[in-house]
Amino acid sequence: MTHEMRKWHISYQRTIEYEVVSCPNLFHPQNGALLSIGKKENTRRFVVVDSNIEKYYSTEIKDFFKYHKIDAKILTFPAGEKNKSIDNYLWILRELDMFPINRRDEPIIAIGGGVLTDVVGFVASSYRRGVPHIKIPTTLMGYVDASVGIKSGINFNSNKNRLGSFEPPKKVFLDRTFLTTLPKRHILNGVCEILKLAIIKDTSLFELLESHGAECVNSKFQDEIGALILDRAVGAMLEELEPNLFEDDLARRVDFGHTFSYGFETFHDTQLLHGEAVLIDMAISAILAASRDLLSKQELNRIFDLITKLGVVLIDDLVNPDLLWKTLNERKYHRNGLQRVPLPDGLGKCVFVNDIKFEEIQSACKNLENWTEINDTIHEY
Amino acid sequence: MTHEMRKWHISYQRTIEYEVVSCPNLFHPQNGALLSIGKKENTRRFVVVDSNIEKYYSTEIKDFFKYHKIDAKILTFPAGEKNKSIDNYLWILRELDMFPINRRDEPIIAIGGGVLTDVVGFVASSYRRGVPHIKIPTTLMGYVDASVGIKSGINFNSNKNRLGSFEPPKKVFLDRTFLTTLPKRHILNGVCEILKLAIIKDTSLFELLESHGAECVNSKFQDEIGALILDRAVGAMLEELEPNLFEDDLARRVDFGHTFSYGFETFHDTQLLHGEAVLIDMAISAILAASRDLLSKQELNRIFDLITKLGVVLIDDLVNPDLLWKTLNERKYHRNGLQRVPLPDGLGKCVFVNDIKFEEIQSACKNLENWTEINDTIHEY
Repeated sequence: MTHEMRKWHISYQRTIEYEVVSCPNLFHPQNGALLSIGKKENTRRFVVVDSNIEKYYSTEIKDFFKYHKIDAKILTFPAGEKNKSIDNYLWILRELDMFPINRRDEPIIAIGGGVLTDVVGFVASSYRRGVPHIKIPTTLMGYVDASVGIKSGINFNSNKNRLGSFEPPKKVFLDRTFLTTLPKRHILNGVCEILKLAIIKDTSLFELLESHGAECVNSKFQDEIGALILDRAVGAMLEELEPNLFEDDLARRVDFGHTFSYGFETFHDTQLLHGEAVLIDMAISAILAASRDLLSKQELNRIFDLITKLGVVLIDDLVNPDLLWKTLNERKYHRNGLQRVPLPDGLGKCVFVNDIKFEEIQSACKNLENWTEINDTIHEY
Repeated sequence: MTHEMRKWHISYQRTIEYEVVSCPNLFHPQNGALLSIGKKENTRRFVVVDSNIEKYYSTEIKDFFKYHKIDAKILTFPAGEKNKSIDNYLWILRELDMFPINRRDEPIIAIGGGVLTDVVGFVASSYRRGVPHIKIPTTLMGYVDASVGIKSGINFNSNKNRLGSFEPPKKVFLDRTFLTTLPKRHILNGVCEILKLAIIKDTSLFELLESHGAECVNSKFQDEIGALILDRAVGAMLEELEPNLFEDDLARRVDFGHTFSYGFETFHDTQLLHGEAVLIDMAISAILAASRDLLSKQELNRIFDLITKLGVVLIDDLVNPDLLWKTLNERKYHRNGLQRVPLPDGLGKCVFVNDIKFEEIQSACKNLENWTEINDTIHEY
């Protein structure tokens, strides 16, 4: 038995570091921020740009690389959730492999919304077992949520984000001037994630939304108060993500609104945006919380009043107890056997529950239905 | 400018830990080692088994899970390098997604050679952004090399391991009884990686191979001295990998024999095994080292004598300077702009060179040709 039970213990401390920087007018030729990462001379960049962004900013982006004498391959990625596919992932990889780039000092640059930065992040994580990448969100959803963390993903086998990785970017540049060309529906889409953070974490942010949210939606966050709200939301998000970057703890407050939403997005072939799905989930979760006396009637009303005030669109067509129950059980695999549903515990705080019953969901759905009947929150775009 | 230059610095220390354990008769029903990781009761396992192993050990493996009342889905993976493909990667993922498993406590189990553990490692790293996996190498190449580290990979766009990840396993179980059914050519395949470690790192291992290597090839490493050599090789490999687990340092001693070999495997549609390609590279690299006076004539002879003695097969048909030069330049992308070719610096030591010229390669090829003409090392299987 002498040789038979040899055992080697491998242990390694890995330091993950990156910066999220707000930096307007990133593609102004005199702005060197984007080139602060990687090789500067005699170098190449593989750039993936969302087709919506390409429409407005194509010349600016091309000219930037030309001005800095960088051999850039610019790939236009078709906008929309349905393009978050294995086919597009492989298409980008083939284009990248044929370009190609150095493994360490020629970062891939992703310019677009959450769909694009998620796909490109997965490309970056798997090409040669990982090459560096930089994210530049151009939607509000990307700005406050998808781009600032390290999660990448593509849809697979009819399931949202079923494949992906944790891939820290080298840097995230937040340039809110991109929001000026974003349609209102997509501004509201991102607002839902800001609202999420306000409800479970930050009552000051909640109050800011109450007093200034609607005007920020109108200004597309281009004014001072808009900048303040964005900073506060990004800061709150990063505060939640940083200590649990690889989700070792599966009880995550930022998963508020992200349980039942999965079903609305996955089990229905709808045109629902992510934030819109999250909003329905938050409404149901808030009602569930109120029925457990975690939220007072006043607090629940404050949430629904804010929803109305912001103009975010609560679509309740998809809300049925069977779908919600099916989704909750699917999510248990993802949360390793427990429901771990985040519910607000008063405003600005959060608890996790593992014992939601079907009957409770039935009753919450009924309550939501009553609420949307009374309130005229179904808007037309 | 007050809001405009906000900056968040994200920093996280991640601890990577896993164990490599030599554990014979792993699938004996009374052996609980494999179930020491993950949930034990009312649980499931997704198991991927190499078709060669399935042939010999199918009943044993099935009975093991049945005995322990584990709902196991056993997938048979076709043996051979050509199956290290995106199609097979996606096929496994679809099967897994339809099974399915809990995200954290029902580890995927990979039983097979380097091809299989590389593909399954990539599956594990990308399914739900990472689920745990256990590796059980059944070839000598897997035992001493592919399985003990954290690299996963598949071939893509005609390039070897172009996609993949660094994915630490939960545990690696080394059960050398699997080697008893391994064909001799595959024993020799793994011996090439042991020889690599002996040349650039461990002169005691080199001496052990000189005195006992040939008999271990015959016994398929089932005797005491075989166990000793395997332990020494695994220990040496892990000593190299552990401090540089994510290849932050691209100058890696274990890349000895892994520069030109890439071209033999990638640019030629041959049936060459990985170790066979590595062997040709080591022979050329040793000749290059000797021509730079890094190895003495005696040391070079000792290496070639050991090659002959072990019976590993040096195939020089593919050796041509143009292919080697093309490969070296491709590898520069992977090594971020520098050649970083490891050459032995005396036996047991290693240096990295960045200035290999085409003429030097031409002359090394000529020398190798002369050597293989004189020595009758081309064996038939």
